[in-house]
Amino acid sequence: MRKDKVSEAVIRRLPKYYRYLMELERIGVERISSQELSKKMGIKATQIRQDLNCFGGFGQQGYGYQVKMLKKEIKDIIGLNREYRVILVGAGNIGQALANYIGFEKEGFNIVGIFDVNPKLIGNTIRSKTIMDIDTLHTFAKQNRIDLCIITTPKENAQQIADMVIGVGIKSIWNFAPVDVEARKGVFVENVHLNDSLYTLVYRINEQEGMKKRECLPAKGGE
Amino acid sequence: MRKDKVSEAVIRRLPKYYRYLMELERIGVERISSQELSKKMGIKATQIRQDLNCFGGFGQQGYGYQVKMLKKEIKDIIGLNREYRVILVGAGNIGQALANYIGFEKEGFNIVGIFDVNPKLIGNTIRSKTIMDIDTLHTFAKQNRIDLCIITTPKENAQQIADMVIGVGIKSIWNFAPVDVEARKGVFVENVHLNDSLYTLVYRINEQEGMKKRECLPAKGGE
Repeated sequence: MRKDKVSEAVIRRLPKYYRYLMELERIGVERISSQELSKKMGIKATQIRQDLNCFGGFGQQGYGYQVKMLKKEIKDIIGLNREYRVILVGAGNIGQALANYIGFEKEGFNIVGIFDVNPKLIGNTIRSKTIMDIDTLHTFAKQNRIDLCIITTPKENAQQIADMVIGVGIKSIWNFAPVDVEARKGVFVENVHLNDSLYTLVYRINEQEGMKKRECLPAKGGE
Repeated sequence: MRKDKVSEAVIRRLPKYYRYLMELERIGVERISSQELSKKMGIKATQIRQDLNCFGGFGQQGYGYQVKMLKKEIKDIIGLNREYRVILVGAGNIGQALANYIGFEKEGFNIVGIFDVNPKLIGNTIRSKTIMDIDTLHTFAKQNRIDLCIITTPKENAQQIADMVIGVGIKSIWNFAPVDVEARKGVFVENVHLNDSLYTLVYRINEQEGMKKRECLPAKGGE
């Protein structure tokens, strides 16, 4: 009997399971087989069963999965059954959009502090939260428990902000600046690169329009 | 000599190459070996050479890659050397943030139309573009060439909007609604799920805090 640690790939699939199960629950589906779920999600049924077995299985042979129950289990496994205290650094377009998005609050993500360097923004409020001077972040972090920092600064400032928030003891960073932020071991970073998916889309548009005829040659090595 | 079609994985890595090369150019690096690039990007050097060989190579043995030249080549390969006419459907928080983001315009993405169903939003402007009634989208699409549609509606409306814009001949969809939008063959869809990376982060926070002890058991099969 294997006792593997839950792999990166499995962890990355959990939000997708959660998303599909929420949608199934919303449209009134009560139970689903791994085969049906497989067809919907584009993940092999054996993969689904193996993934869910990392956390205890939840399915019954010949019956499938109870949608509501499995959704709740995956919600708990991800850790969406508690509150997270979040700060946001960078109150520009994307920062404001995230701070305004009430969906996060519903899921337990409470934005407890918003910071910026811009004097024109400092003092403004977003959903009754005052935008604070980045210089006050250190003191704020000492006085408040913070679980997560969202970085929505320009790319030039992202690493510096990351270093600063790691310095005050914050262990998780959700970075929207278009640069890969690096952190020491024990700090978790998710770099969101919105443009990457846009560029993939654009590549396909051009590929379809026949502007590119491509073939892969073997690597020579040594470049 | 292989003549493979460029694989999905290679296409998905192109934006990452572009991002790193832009950053290298910004900090003044003129040339880089595949080994150095490998270390920075966390992609094997052989993989980098093989990927770039799909498009002609660009490297010189013992010299490496010219950063500026390679960046330009990859920019052209992705298709960022032309203008794209974009419409945006859903002028809520994320929609407004994307419409306000001038970075897209700099890269050739021109938002030519913004649409919503909300009478309170219709008629407002975002960067001098008037938010139009979704009912006028059909006529607008007939009169204007549109390369790409950004969907930033609630999840309940996303598929319906996708079907509508595909119906008027739009071939590419960049979807931010938290549901996988489906399309017929020949239409390209990129579903952006911001929450997925947030949930992955949250899973790790809880894993570290020792709230979960997990091991993977082999699948039994048949659920």
